[in-house]
Amino acid sequence: MTQLQKMGAAAKQAAAVLRTAGEKKREALLKAAEILRNETEKILAANAIDVKAAKENGMSESLLDRLTLTAARVEGMAKGIEDVAALRDPVGRVLSGETRPNGLRIEKITVPMGVIGIIYEARPNVTSDAAALCLMAGSAVILRGGKEAFHSNMAVTALMQEACEAVGLPKESVQLVEDTSRASSVEMMGMTGYLDLLIPRGGAGLIRAVVENAKVPVIETGVGNCHVYVDKDADLEMAAEIVFNGKTSRPSVCNAVETLLVHREVAEKALPMIAARLNEKHVELRGDSETCRILPEAKPAEEADYETEFLDYILAVRVVDSAEAAVGHIAQYSSGHSECIVTNSLKTAEYFTACVDSAAVYVNASTRFTDGGEMGLGAEIGISTQKLHARGPMGLNEIVSYKYIVRGSGQIR
Amino acid sequence: MTQLQKMGAAAKQAAAVLRTAGEKKREALLKAAEILRNETEKILAANAIDVKAAKENGMSESLLDRLTLTAARVEGMAKGIEDVAALRDPVGRVLSGETRPNGLRIEKITVPMGVIGIIYEARPNVTSDAAALCLMAGSAVILRGGKEAFHSNMAVTALMQEACEAVGLPKESVQLVEDTSRASSVEMMGMTGYLDLLIPRGGAGLIRAVVENAKVPVIETGVGNCHVYVDKDADLEMAAEIVFNGKTSRPSVCNAVETLLVHREVAEKALPMIAARLNEKHVELRGDSETCRILPEAKPAEEADYETEFLDYILAVRVVDSAEAAVGHIAQYSSGHSECIVTNSLKTAEYFTACVDSAAVYVNASTRFTDGGEMGLGAEIGISTQKLHARGPMGLNEIVSYKYIVRGSGQIR
Repeated sequence: MTQLQKMGAAAKQAAAVLRTAGEKKREALLKAAEILRNETEKILAANAIDVKAAKENGMSESLLDRLTLTAARVEGMAKGIEDVAALRDPVGRVLSGETRPNGLRIEKITVPMGVIGIIYEARPNVTSDAAALCLMAGSAVILRGGKEAFHSNMAVTALMQEACEAVGLPKESVQLVEDTSRASSVEMMGMTGYLDLLIPRGGAGLIRAVVENAKVPVIETGVGNCHVYVDKDADLEMAAEIVFNGKTSRPSVCNAVETLLVHREVAEKALPMIAARLNEKHVELRGDSETCRILPEAKPAEEADYETEFLDYILAVRVVDSAEAAVGHIAQYSSGHSECIVTNSLKTAEYFTACVDSAAVYVNASTRFTDGGEMGLGAEIGISTQKLHARGPMGLNEIVSYKYIVRGSGQIR
Repeated sequence: MTQLQKMGAAAKQAAAVLRTAGEKKREALLKAAEILRNETEKILAANAIDVKAAKENGMSESLLDRLTLTAARVEGMAKGIEDVAALRDPVGRVLSGETRPNGLRIEKITVPMGVIGIIYEARPNVTSDAAALCLMAGSAVILRGGKEAFHSNMAVTALMQEACEAVGLPKESVQLVEDTSRASSVEMMGMTGYLDLLIPRGGAGLIRAVVENAKVPVIETGVGNCHVYVDKDADLEMAAEIVFNGKTSRPSVCNAVETLLVHREVAEKALPMIAARLNEKHVELRGDSETCRILPEAKPAEEADYETEFLDYILAVRVVDSAEAAVGHIAQYSSGHSECIVTNSLKTAEYFTACVDSAAVYVNASTRFTDGGEMGLGAEIGISTQKLHARGPMGLNEIVSYKYIVRGSGQIR
């Protein structure tokens, strides 16, 4: 048995306990939040080791910022765990049921997944967030964080384990993979018989590696090539605000806007309005020939620009002839995350929402709302861009399974 | 582009039409049933070619029986298509929704998967069943049937396409892969970007190949190593009936019983009663030492017998010390399909249903009821043994996805 298989076997045993752990899951989380607060200094000390090494290795400022913990951020992590503990238990909900003509009573009831694997990068707060969500969903979790946050992740995992043991749950309910090589990540993707679900959280490269290598069930997350389409019947001031918000409020996240499509009939008026707003944040525009004609400051876009999730102050722009052309562009280039139409036409709005095949389709609102908290799901473990099992933000209810319980009195077929 | 990729691209275009096809889906199915009835002779002629070749190649009697169509079986296929057409459209159901404090109106609504691939063996009626279910669920389907049924499958596919065109739907809504080599099957498993879902229907070998090779989202189906546990508080006559029904009513199906577990306290009395009943159908028993002591006719079981889906008149038997031991045995050997406890103890029944982690858990009823029709789901496309997306019988509602539609009035974040 490899080290990871041993962890997998231990996780399966923990999962069997968690399956019927009831309120102990909540108690463990509250305990974890308490320990986290009490041991803030210890966490910060572990994090300081990671930050020092990262600085020596020349990590970029923005990544360093994500990696660095402060007392306030640790408090945020503790609060995050408590928020999860305050959610309704997703296990044991009766989804449907009926009594069959032969008297069989059938109940479809939510049950835990079992063992969930999470592969993620950079931020140490993902460790506590993801562990809390999996635990509350009744699943054991095997975390495989990035090497840059290794000491921070170890410290957080240790206290989650301490909290589990304090309430009588197995410490193997939460485990961290110590080997942060690419090999351990690939091995996890192949752990059939141990992992019931693998959630990769990271960039396009990680997602591609998972699609290529995974033999266990996977939910792909987080790649967002999001579009705003400004229709000929749009309120152009609203459009400018929605594009500005979608592009600049947090360019590094997956629900940020990457491509703007504008109807030819309003392009002459809309593009300068939108460009003026985006210029406040020095957003670079890459447009088709019509866009470049209207906006001399725009650079010519290449095909690849429409395929790119920039995660930066860059926006691809294209003028389209119709709502149909906008839907066609989205069908070709979108990653299926979030798209928006700005329009006052009911007919066009209904056409767009019916025909755009993405996790979240917006009418007159920013794509930035695709987020578990904003959508009322509570904390989220990721945003699914696939169609199997869960789509869009995944909260507690999206990381459980179900089973049928059938009660009879000797029925045979 | 390979032939399969061309089919995938055509299917994606058809899927875009099917997404909003509404009642045309139903019309196409009714038309298909009509054509199927009118062209029974044509279908039987095509089938005769397959059957002749199969006989020449020495196909076994039971497989030949599955392959052979008769006028009555074609009528059954037509009726099956009409049954699907009579079901409620699974697309466009509002699963949940709310108005957020900022005024955003969020709706979670079912949508088609897009393109579904199905790999299956032997029986030509799967072609019409699967195509009907996918079409009604608003998805285009790429069928990859076994080579033994090739001419039958082609004939059925042609008439489904004719029916689609007759009502104005693209004929590429239903396509059959003409290359029935193993290579085409493996290529399908890797068709990311074309297939939104792949459902393999077949034996353990096919499922293993899919787990090994698939890069597209998959729902594993149909491997059933099902257990009956006869508790110390069981009604032993009921137990004998449930075991007899589970083992012998149709041994070749996935919801048939493969292993019997009996509590030690009642083994002396229960085993002879059950064995006498099973002996009517000459069921071979393979037991542990205690079983062999009580039943001299039983053969000694090997470890492998507890892992095997016999699909035959063979039953593995083990005497266990407790309900906990039964649950432990099931956790180790089960494929997660269907398990049954026979007991009159409420406490033991509740323990068993809570702790057995299978798609369907029965109290005092035959495992043979794990079936879409028997459970009230309507026709089924397969029985999932995985936990992601769908578990147990999959009807129309299990082969759709959902998306969020968010309506606002200029909200930004």
